[in-house]
Amino acid sequence: MSKERLVVIGGDAAGMSAASKVRREQPEAEIIVFERSPHTSYSACGLPYYISGLVDDPARLVARTPEQFREKYRIDARVRHEVLAIDTAAGRLRVRNLESDQEWWEHYDRLLVATGAVPFCPDLPGSDATGIFGLSTLQSGIRVRRMMEAEKPKRAVVVGGGYIGLEMAEAMIQLGLEVSLVTRGAEVMETLDPDMGALVSEALQEVGVTLYRGETLTGFESREGRVSAVITNQRTLPAEVVILGMGVRPNSHLAREAGIPLGIRDGIQVNERMQTEVDGVWAAGDCVASFHLVSRRPFYIALGTVANKQGTIAGTNLAGGYATFPGVLGTAVSKICKYEVARTGLHEADVRQLGLQYATATIRSRTRAGYYPGAGRITVKVIAEKGSGRLLGGQIVGEEGAAKRIDVLATALQAGMTVHDLVNLDLSYAPPFSPVWDPVQTAARQAVNNL
Amino acid sequence: MSKERLVVIGGDAAGMSAASKVRREQPEAEIIVFERSPHTSYSACGLPYYISGLVDDPARLVARTPEQFREKYRIDARVRHEVLAIDTAAGRLRVRNLESDQEWWEHYDRLLVATGAVPFCPDLPGSDATGIFGLSTLQSGIRVRRMMEAEKPKRAVVVGGGYIGLEMAEAMIQLGLEVSLVTRGAEVMETLDPDMGALVSEALQEVGVTLYRGETLTGFESREGRVSAVITNQRTLPAEVVILGMGVRPNSHLAREAGIPLGIRDGIQVNERMQTEVDGVWAAGDCVASFHLVSRRPFYIALGTVANKQGTIAGTNLAGGYATFPGVLGTAVSKICKYEVARTGLHEADVRQLGLQYATATIRSRTRAGYYPGAGRITVKVIAEKGSGRLLGGQIVGEEGAAKRIDVLATALQAGMTVHDLVNLDLSYAPPFSPVWDPVQTAARQAVNNL
Repeated sequence: MSKERLVVIGGDAAGMSAASKVRREQPEAEIIVFERSPHTSYSACGLPYYISGLVDDPARLVARTPEQFREKYRIDARVRHEVLAIDTAAGRLRVRNLESDQEWWEHYDRLLVATGAVPFCPDLPGSDATGIFGLSTLQSGIRVRRMMEAEKPKRAVVVGGGYIGLEMAEAMIQLGLEVSLVTRGAEVMETLDPDMGALVSEALQEVGVTLYRGETLTGFESREGRVSAVITNQRTLPAEVVILGMGVRPNSHLAREAGIPLGIRDGIQVNERMQTEVDGVWAAGDCVASFHLVSRRPFYIALGTVANKQGTIAGTNLAGGYATFPGVLGTAVSKICKYEVARTGLHEADVRQLGLQYATATIRSRTRAGYYPGAGRITVKVIAEKGSGRLLGGQIVGEEGAAKRIDVLATALQAGMTVHDLVNLDLSYAPPFSPVWDPVQTAARQAVNNL
Repeated sequence: MSKERLVVIGGDAAGMSAASKVRREQPEAEIIVFERSPHTSYSACGLPYYISGLVDDPARLVARTPEQFREKYRIDARVRHEVLAIDTAAGRLRVRNLESDQEWWEHYDRLLVATGAVPFCPDLPGSDATGIFGLSTLQSGIRVRRMMEAEKPKRAVVVGGGYIGLEMAEAMIQLGLEVSLVTRGAEVMETLDPDMGALVSEALQEVGVTLYRGETLTGFESREGRVSAVITNQRTLPAEVVILGMGVRPNSHLAREAGIPLGIRDGIQVNERMQTEVDGVWAAGDCVASFHLVSRRPFYIALGTVANKQGTIAGTNLAGGYATFPGVLGTAVSKICKYEVARTGLHEADVRQLGLQYATATIRSRTRAGYYPGAGRITVKVIAEKGSGRLLGGQIVGEEGAAKRIDVLATALQAGMTVHDLVNLDLSYAPPFSPVWDPVQTAARQAVNNL
């Protein structure tokens, strides 16, 4: 009997985490990875810092190259190879080598779909002009930086007020551009409540970003095929470079065409072991539908941490072990200018949509003891269920040292703690690190009073 | 019927937290606080930073003065008043005004004992010489700084390798002194395992502290009543100033003499509502015995965070409400030179003493994504129970941004999580804050493999 062959579609976080895990557990397995781009295992989250010049070499964003996977892990990572179709009945894939344009069928015994997500690019007049970028692959980041270096644009418009939009707006400011940001929301950062998002809007304006809130993109103007302006429902904004940060969608079309059932927002449906509903086919990362641990509903999120975890879990199961992924909280953090911004769990709009009754508490405190040099400002908001006091979500906006405190709230959420429990947590304290009541506990105390 | 009178002995964290809570809940209650020192509600943890000059004014360490308590909270905070005896049968206290030397009996309806802790000062030859300091009250800190400014000593010896000893050693180095530190342990910081403590020992040596490990204090030499040397079981160390950081003891002699039962290490025995075994008498803060949530045994700890929480809980109950304090984990954090040091739960020696079998994992990682500027080193150790995988404790030594991660482990401990649970936590990630696997999760993954 020949060795079992695992084929992975997609060579970034989820795919390569799974492949590496299988290699550790099954030294004899044959492992092939097809990746459309020239790169494996890169940090998409690092792209804004490469574009701003804070990170000088794109190679630094790559955790492991295809050569390293081949040589150190005996994983046959074939970049610039696109999978065109999955034939689950025959257990084979239609593959094209993007260099040679050759096509063939490749057999698999076990398949992992880790095709990631694609940035949402609206089909609007002028959207095919050059100078309009979505940010997803390492290649896309390299293209943006090359364009910036070659053409030295002076005016940038960022469309979208999420993490990528904001981080890119800051990067463009650091490069000396005039930057406008268009968001449909009342404030940037719609994963925060508007009162917390307003703090981030202010921070962006302080560094010189011009904000257009409550506006929607309607199209682009171009000159000789190059973008020259962004058109919203309210104005025309001149621009030589446009960054689209309008969210991402699961890249699940291959799965859909192969009859693999999809779930929420067209993410591939998987069980807790990352198994699809088709025998022998697994899926992980930004292409799958997740489960939200607080709302207890299906949820879609595209995040490197989740992709790495799901990939490792898929790898464990593919190698004959047993591991499950419980779900997500939507925890996220970002550095926006001088502020650190973080959130976890549900925000008010989510809670209302679920029909739950709740109390909130928003407190202002300091990142260190008030008398200790460098004590920065921090605002913490927590949301708790009426009656039970069950923690439902948390949001933090603050200066250096503020954001990672969200992890206490994330851990408490995952444990199903109440705000009463939070008040009694034995958290660490010393003047260089915290006031004697950690700000997350101060928020919890206030929430107890508001229940 | 006259108003109920609450009397509090001790005007720092626990005492004033309780008094303030009672005032909020019972606007009409009569509240008297007796405090031996001239200060209320000060941060003892801030003393090393006042002595080093990082904080210039001792008033900045005071959260609220006796005048503020009187005027804003109608709490009659009487400083420089010592309680000499508690008469629980008659419901009264013997009080002395330390300014006038007057003595009298003061009636109480409800009593809170919040007498704190006292530094352990060994009764050794020469220990009454001047220039030998224990650090506890704000007064003691002011005395040290005055002596340093007036006499400009050149050589300091610190006895004790705990937080206060280490923070004071660093303060003395910053003031330009030649500093030796004597500890009986194999490494400094005996609340860490020796492998982690060794990292802290190194950091101290790097900034110029001369360490004498595995040595015990046997006495002092003095000249004209002033200390001139510290004697250990192995050598004589010249010194013009000596800091004793040999731990603290609950200041429970008043309670003992009044027949109030004591518990572990002579801490006052209280239930979860902070009630002693004598009717109408409550106790909170550094003078009480606590319960350890991981060992599930009585435990003594003196810490500002715990004292504040216990004080608030005592206050809630004294005001006729209901609140309980579940116990402690021994969470602590400190900044020692360029390192941040933190711990929670049990360390290996504790676990062995309980007869539990365990696995450990120690990993080296970075505080940020490797490619992001300022990514510092971090070492995380976790201890988990064999079989169940239940987290038992954690330790962190690292550069800026490392230490507060201990709060994730503390929250996980309090929730009774396993290392499997830790691996699946949805913690926050962005390149300026963390590698894609947070170091505490990397440690947990390793621990799962070692179980």
